[in-house]
Amino acid sequence: MSAVPAGIWRIGHDGPEAYAEDREGPRRMVASPGFLIDRTAVTNSAFARFVAATNYVTEAERIGWSFVFYAQLHPSAEKDVLDLETGSPEWWLPVRGANWSRPDGAGTDWRDRDDHPVVHISWNDAVAYALWSGKRLPSESEWEIAARGGLEDRIYPWGNDLLEQGRHRCNIWQGRFPRENTAEDGFLSTAPADAFEPNGYGLFNMVGNVWEWTSDSWSQSQPQLKAMRGGSYLCHRSHCNRYRVSARTSNAVDAASSHLGFRCSADMPAPSAGSF
Amino acid sequence: MSAVPAGIWRIGHDGPEAYAEDREGPRRMVASPGFLIDRTAVTNSAFARFVAATNYVTEAERIGWSFVFYAQLHPSAEKDVLDLETGSPEWWLPVRGANWSRPDGAGTDWRDRDDHPVVHISWNDAVAYALWSGKRLPSESEWEIAARGGLEDRIYPWGNDLLEQGRHRCNIWQGRFPRENTAEDGFLSTAPADAFEPNGYGLFNMVGNVWEWTSDSWSQSQPQLKAMRGGSYLCHRSHCNRYRVSARTSNAVDAASSHLGFRCSADMPAPSAGSF
Ligand SMILES: [Ca+2]
Ligand SMILES: [Ca+2]
Repeated sequence: MSAVPAGIWRIGHDGPEAYAEDREGPRRMVASPGFLIDRTAVTNSAFARFVAATNYVTEAERIGWSFVFYAQLHPSAEKDVLDLETGSPEWWLPVRGANWSRPDGAGTDWRDRDDHPVVHISWNDAVAYALWSGKRLPSESEWEIAARGGLEDRIYPWGNDLLEQGRHRCNIWQGRFPRENTAEDGFLSTAPADAFEPNGYGLFNMVGNVWEWTSDSWSQSQPQLKAMRGGSYLCHRSHCNRYRVSARTSNAVDAASSHLGFRCSADMPAPSAGSF
Repeated sequence: MSAVPAGIWRIGHDGPEAYAEDREGPRRMVASPGFLIDRTAVTNSAFARFVAATNYVTEAERIGWSFVFYAQLHPSAEKDVLDLETGSPEWWLPVRGANWSRPDGAGTDWRDRDDHPVVHISWNDAVAYALWSGKRLPSESEWEIAARGGLEDRIYPWGNDLLEQGRHRCNIWQGRFPRENTAEDGFLSTAPADAFEPNGYGLFNMVGNVWEWTSDSWSQSQPQLKAMRGGSYLCHRSHCNRYRVSARTSNAVDAASSHLGFRCSADMPAPSAGSF
């Protein structure tokens, strides 16, 4: 984990590209006593250790299906697409048997991407993992402070330019969503959790790759909706310009999909007597 | 915790008092490698330690209300009864602000019953506590093997007679449910988790007091319903003769109420090299 120092930080955004309807703003100051946060999203291999130790069954496994992005569906899983009225955009297929261990449905295996972020994880699942590991989910404020990496008033974890000298810094969508994915950044779907360069706090993929759950509710009146941060490999500015440090969205506590994962945080350890 | 030894056990019941619609039967043999199980239901003080260490928020707190048995409602909470179509019997009131820390709503406090079982705990909450504490929920088979306390083919954890020489052995309902509770057993609602005599394995209140979650789904086709065991202080043979070791019922994974708690189990520790 990386330590984010105590401080008073400016978070939020109300510039022209902010999504006002997501309540990204206002820009505001928040104080933090400092905290620890995972350098990467929780990987498939880390989640597999949790399952091996506890026999934990995720909500997607219990319910029997999860949402897979249509272009990722494994041919063996075409027979498993369910005829459900899900209310989700047509690119999200409800797929029987899709879960963390078979991320693109039948015929796929987490072991073939063991260093990628675990996906198909509901908020309840993420909390269960965090409790078992002696950690917790980050609050939204903590997540954003961490994502900013010590920089002030920047759009991305590394600055204000999406590309640096033509170099990609994160895993999002290039091309025309949802039909054409040119994968100029090197990845059609998830990338390894430690792909690309880390930010100023040594944190990888705070934007892009997979959405990450936080501990906070979307609003006081919607406690069963939790805030997610960071955007995913499906984000493109044409439909989801949310691979920015201040952007946010939400999902239900029992929802899961192929682009939603998490990382954990923890309180700063108390100084030991020996440190004085 | 108590250790339940390895063995082959007879569980299930298909006698005249069995509830066939609950699939208590058939009587059948199950093998177990042995396991550990909490001697009591998880108490309010134990759950409070969990919350203090993790800031965990239960589902009843998040949703903002829980079910309280009407006769227990604290007068200060009468204003908090919600006008909801819950589909539950009329003795279950949906009460704003009722949760583990205010078990009978506003005006009540877990500290006044710190050695009682924690209630208003959903299945998700119970799993979270178990993972944090390095334990797990018992399977239904484990729960029943444990409840039988080493006896064979008995109705209760202590034998076949509900009363022994006029002495009560568990906390259920006496009188005419739901209007008259004579509390001959000493308790109108929950009793301390270690009230009454333990069974042959040293386990307290395996029947009566509070329903206890298990890890098992109610049926393969209803994975969001989990099996509960043991009955509660509201059980009376007139409407719920389920304070028997083989009896079962179910509830949704996010449901909570004032008579539903849990206890944890764990695998038997591997023998250390020093034990040979
Ligand atoms: Ca990409
Ligand atoms: Ca009683």
